[in-house]
Amino acid sequence: MLYLVGLGLSDETDITVKGLEVVKKAERVYLEAYTSILLVDQATLESYYGRPIVVADREMVESNSDEILRDADKVDVAFCVVGDPFGATTHTDLVLRARELGIQVRTLPNASIMSGIGAAGLQLYNFGQTVSMVFFLDNWRPASFYDRIKENRSIGLHTLVLLDIKVKEQSLENMARGRKIYEPPRYMTVGTCAQQMLEIEEEKQEGVYGPESLAIGCARVGGKTEKFVSGTLKELCDADDLLGPPLHSLILLGRRTHELEHDFVREFAVNKENWDRIWKAEYCGKQ
Amino acid sequence: MLYLVGLGLSDETDITVKGLEVVKKAERVYLEAYTSILLVDQATLESYYGRPIVVADREMVESNSDEILRDADKVDVAFCVVGDPFGATTHTDLVLRARELGIQVRTLPNASIMSGIGAAGLQLYNFGQTVSMVFFLDNWRPASFYDRIKENRSIGLHTLVLLDIKVKEQSLENMARGRKIYEPPRYMTVGTCAQQMLEIEEEKQEGVYGPESLAIGCARVGGKTEKFVSGTLKELCDADDLLGPPLHSLILLGRRTHELEHDFVREFAVNKENWDRIWKAEYCGKQ
Repeated sequence: MLYLVGLGLSDETDITVKGLEVVKKAERVYLEAYTSILLVDQATLESYYGRPIVVADREMVESNSDEILRDADKVDVAFCVVGDPFGATTHTDLVLRARELGIQVRTLPNASIMSGIGAAGLQLYNFGQTVSMVFFLDNWRPASFYDRIKENRSIGLHTLVLLDIKVKEQSLENMARGRKIYEPPRYMTVGTCAQQMLEIEEEKQEGVYGPESLAIGCARVGGKTEKFVSGTLKELCDADDLLGPPLHSLILLGRRTHELEHDFVREFAVNKENWDRIWKAEYCGKQ
Repeated sequence: MLYLVGLGLSDETDITVKGLEVVKKAERVYLEAYTSILLVDQATLESYYGRPIVVADREMVESNSDEILRDADKVDVAFCVVGDPFGATTHTDLVLRARELGIQVRTLPNASIMSGIGAAGLQLYNFGQTVSMVFFLDNWRPASFYDRIKENRSIGLHTLVLLDIKVKEQSLENMARGRKIYEPPRYMTVGTCAQQMLEIEEEKQEGVYGPESLAIGCARVGGKTEKFVSGTLKELCDADDLLGPPLHSLILLGRRTHELEHDFVREFAVNKENWDRIWKAEYCGKQ
């Protein structure tokens, strides 16, 4: 049996009791570690599980999945995923391959950032499609997120923006020379995200959002040091110090809001007067 | 401290290790049991936690929250919620009241139906807003879901439809006479949901969806007996036997799909030829 085990969002004790039983007994344990991370390291997980873990990078999952699936028709293999196995990153291709090989699959769900974000205080019902924000380069500034946000905002919905992480990336030079030397990991902050969003708005000028649009910066959701900071996109450009270490994500508000949400989120505001003024003018009571 | 503890979707072992530690140590343990249910009963939970549980019905949470919060500035209180504490039902009002009383709050997230639904094989990124479907009465057929689905479909997005559950409801007669006698619980099935959706389309005639629209019926998501059945809305009107016992939910597909999703979801189709034909004509490669 192939078990897809969600690890939740924060540390080694966020695994479910059922998930922990599976991990402790499985013949082999893999950790998918390229699309998100826990706030603890591999050694902590291994000591908590009492088991060695094979870290599965993108290359292994995408090109060498048969090794992961080896003998899984006869023995139990646990494939652990930060968050939920079908959350922000889906592993449908691994499951499809397992099906081809006649291997049974069972999913043990867990908190995903896509639902955990509800802790910021906005109703999950009113979120539209989720978008991703990647680190811009001088000559590469992918902006497909802009049209998606436009769609969400046109019908009053919030947008969850998931932020790039760069793990085990090679520099162009090292890649060209075939040197398996990896850059230090990088995690996008809310500040960078807000900045990039405003750059694209300035370029496109479609008024999808602006410096005064309300948003919530979210850090370490689900963890003990979870932190939310709300404010305008402009204010959030400079809120990284308040938010602290990774992982970050951002919610851009839609106009479909409720008074209870105002009270809840206001608590996190960089500048409460600003928040109240803009909320009242642009969000409150709109449908 | 007030702990909001997510219990996950299925049984007593879906709680996180961290959540279980909190529940075992808390001074009082409440279970919010009116918006969703686990597939196991209270006695099973109590024996697993080794603790008595107070079942908190809607009246208690909405009108008597100070009893739940009593002394929570000095002792730990665990308020357990099926799924995630900020998932389909949010408990923002309880948190706001705790803040007023100077009580610290911590959330322990878990799988929510709003992310667990990813196990059906459609990317969560492409879901729009979530809607609820309530049991229609002869003279009460709330159809606000229709406009929301229309918005989602206008931009190509999937819609998760959460289905009504009736727990601890009084008949009109018993309510009028002040008799605290409750009807047996009722859980809406995918068949009833699909039927009600088609009734409203027939009434409104806006072509938001129709009998040939593709959808996925989902049962007991996250549990050992999790089951998905895909087909047209018309086919799903008669698929309750295939799906089995509650809880059910339904996904109405948007046109923004990927080939991998086709392969994944086709496996669950009532009628694969039908599925392929409609997918090819209406969904495949559309944006």
